[in-house]
Amino acid sequence: MTDKSDNVGKRLAWIAADWGSSNLRVWAMDGDDRVIDRARSEKGMLALSPAEYEAELLRLVNDWLPERTVRVVVCGMAGARQGWQEAAYLALPAALDRLSQAAVRPRMQDQRLEVVILPGASQRALDGSGFDVMRGEETQLAGLLATAPGFTGLACLPGTHSKWARLDDGALTRFATYLTGELYELLAGHSVLRHSVTPDLDDEACRDAFRQAVRESVDQPERFTNALFTLRARDLLDTTLPGGERRGQLLGARLSGLVIGQELADATRNLPRDEPVTLIGGAVLTRRYTQALEALERPCTILDGDAAVLAGLTLAHRTLTD
Amino acid sequence: MTDKSDNVGKRLAWIAADWGSSNLRVWAMDGDDRVIDRARSEKGMLALSPAEYEAELLRLVNDWLPERTVRVVVCGMAGARQGWQEAAYLALPAALDRLSQAAVRPRMQDQRLEVVILPGASQRALDGSGFDVMRGEETQLAGLLATAPGFTGLACLPGTHSKWARLDDGALTRFATYLTGELYELLAGHSVLRHSVTPDLDDEACRDAFRQAVRESVDQPERFTNALFTLRARDLLDTTLPGGERRGQLLGARLSGLVIGQELADATRNLPRDEPVTLIGGAVLTRRYTQALEALERPCTILDGDAAVLAGLTLAHRTLTD
Repeated sequence: MTDKSDNVGKRLAWIAADWGSSNLRVWAMDGDDRVIDRARSEKGMLALSPAEYEAELLRLVNDWLPERTVRVVVCGMAGARQGWQEAAYLALPAALDRLSQAAVRPRMQDQRLEVVILPGASQRALDGSGFDVMRGEETQLAGLLATAPGFTGLACLPGTHSKWARLDDGALTRFATYLTGELYELLAGHSVLRHSVTPDLDDEACRDAFRQAVRESVDQPERFTNALFTLRARDLLDTTLPGGERRGQLLGARLSGLVIGQELADATRNLPRDEPVTLIGGAVLTRRYTQALEALERPCTILDGDAAVLAGLTLAHRTLTD
Repeated sequence: MTDKSDNVGKRLAWIAADWGSSNLRVWAMDGDDRVIDRARSEKGMLALSPAEYEAELLRLVNDWLPERTVRVVVCGMAGARQGWQEAAYLALPAALDRLSQAAVRPRMQDQRLEVVILPGASQRALDGSGFDVMRGEETQLAGLLATAPGFTGLACLPGTHSKWARLDDGALTRFATYLTGELYELLAGHSVLRHSVTPDLDDEACRDAFRQAVRESVDQPERFTNALFTLRARDLLDTTLPGGERRGQLLGARLSGLVIGQELADATRNLPRDEPVTLIGGAVLTRRYTQALEALERPCTILDGDAAVLAGLTLAHRTLTD
C-alpha cells in the first residue's frame, strides 16, 4: 500500500461512482464530502457482464479501501437491466432528493464494499409520444437540487443524448431526450458530409456560422434534412467560403449549429423568452450551448457537470437511512 | 463472339449508360430506341480513377460492339469533377430537353466508342440557403419531359439523397435535396436505434405506424431529434407494442416515417393541397412515398425510375447534333 493510498484509507468515508455506458469514474470522499482522490476506467456497461462489475470496481478502489466496509454510491447505466443489477426507473413526478430510497444493493464478494445503485427515471405517455428514459442525469439534477433546494425551472444536460428536464419544487415532472450528439457524430463522421466538415474552432467566424445555423434550424425546423445536404452543395459551389481547412471548419460549425438548433427548436418552443435555462455539463458543451441560447437571445446559467454528479451522489449518500 | 452478342452487334444503334457513385448500368439500344440487352457493374465513380473508366465500360459492352463507332450516352457521377471528365453543372433555369448541348466527350483509346457525358445541374442562392446539386436526376427529369413535353409541375425522386424538382414548361427552375435515405441508413444501422429497429414489412400494422409517423413529422418537424430517441424509449417501455421481431418492424416503420415525414414537412409546405407530385423511382421507394403522400391526403403519379433514365438518355441521344 503506497503512502498515498494509506492516506486515502484513513480519511475515506465513502466512494462516489458514475458508471456510464462507456466508462466508470470513482471519487474517494472524506467525512466532509470532499474529494480526496479519483480514478477512471473505460470499462462501461457496454463492456461488462454482471459478474464483472465488482472486480472492475475493486481494480480502481482497492488501494483506497481500509479494513472496514465502505459504501459506494453508484449512478448511471450500471443500474440498467443489461447492467450490474437493475434499479427500476422512477416514475414521474420523481422527488430527486430521495433517489436513495429506490436504490438497489448488489450482493458483494468482498465484504469491504457496500454498493448502492441509484435508479434512473422514466416517462410514459398515453399518446405514445412522450416515452423517455434517463440514467445518470437524474443524479446530476439531484445535484442541482443540492445547490438550489426546491428548484423550480428548466435544466438542459447536453451530450450524446441531450436531456431537457422540467423540475417543480424539487421534483422531476417532465423531460425529453434529443439524439443531438450522436446525430452530429454520425453526420460528421459517416455521412457524405464527412468530405466537407471538420471540427470547428471557437473563433469569431465559426461562432457566427454556428449561431446563424442555430437560428435557421429554430426558424425553419422542417428544412433540417435539406439544410444538411446543402452543406455538401455549399462545399462544392460556394465561392464566398475560404478554401482548405478553414472551409471545413466553417461548414463544421454550421453542421453543429443545425443539429443543436433542431434540439432548441423543440426545447424552447412555448418557453417564455426570459425564462433561464440551467445548463449542466462539461466546459466545451456548456459553452457551445450558451452560444446557441445567446443566438436565440435566451438567458442561461451553468452548473459544472462533474460538480453536479458529485453533489447528487453526496445527497443520495446523506439521505441513505441504513 | 457469342450468337447473342453477334445478334446485339447487328441491331445495336447506340448505348445508354447511367454511371453513378456506386454502380454502372448500360443498355444496348436499337435504332428504334428499344432495349436489346443490358449489363451492370458495381464499379461506380467512387471506385474508379479517370483512366479506368474506358476499360470498365469496355468490359461490359465489348461483346456488343460491331466494327464501327457506337455512341454511348452517359449520365450521372461519371461527369463529376472527381469522375471521368467533368461536365460542368447547368445553371437554372435549365432546359432539360437540351442536356446534350452541354455534354462533354472524353478522348477514347478504342475508336469503336464515342462517349458523351451529360451535365448535372446546380442551384446557387445569394442567401446561402439554396445551394444544391444533382447528377443523374436531371436526366430522369428529361425522361419525364419525353413522356410529357413541356411538363409544368413538381417531381420527387426519392433515394439516398432525395430530390424535389420544380419544372416550368420543360425547364428545371428550382430543386432541393434531402439527406433522407442516408439518414435512415445511419440511424437504423449505426445509432443507438439499431438495437430497436429492423426493416419493416409492407403490411397493415407497419403501414399504419409509418403513416402516423409521417404525419407527426409533418405536424411537428421541430420534434424530430426527440422523436428519434423516443423510438428507443418506446422499445424499453411501451407495453402496448408486440415483442420479438414484430416490435422491431413496427419501430422500423416508425423510423422510416419520421425521416420521410421530415422531408415531406419541407417539400409540401406551401404546396397547394390538390397539386399532384410525380414520383420517379423504383417500385419499393415509390410505393413508400405514395403511402406517405396518402397519409397527407396528397395526390401523386408514378414514373418508373429506369424508364425515366432511359427516356432521358434517349432524348439526349436524339438531340445530339453531331
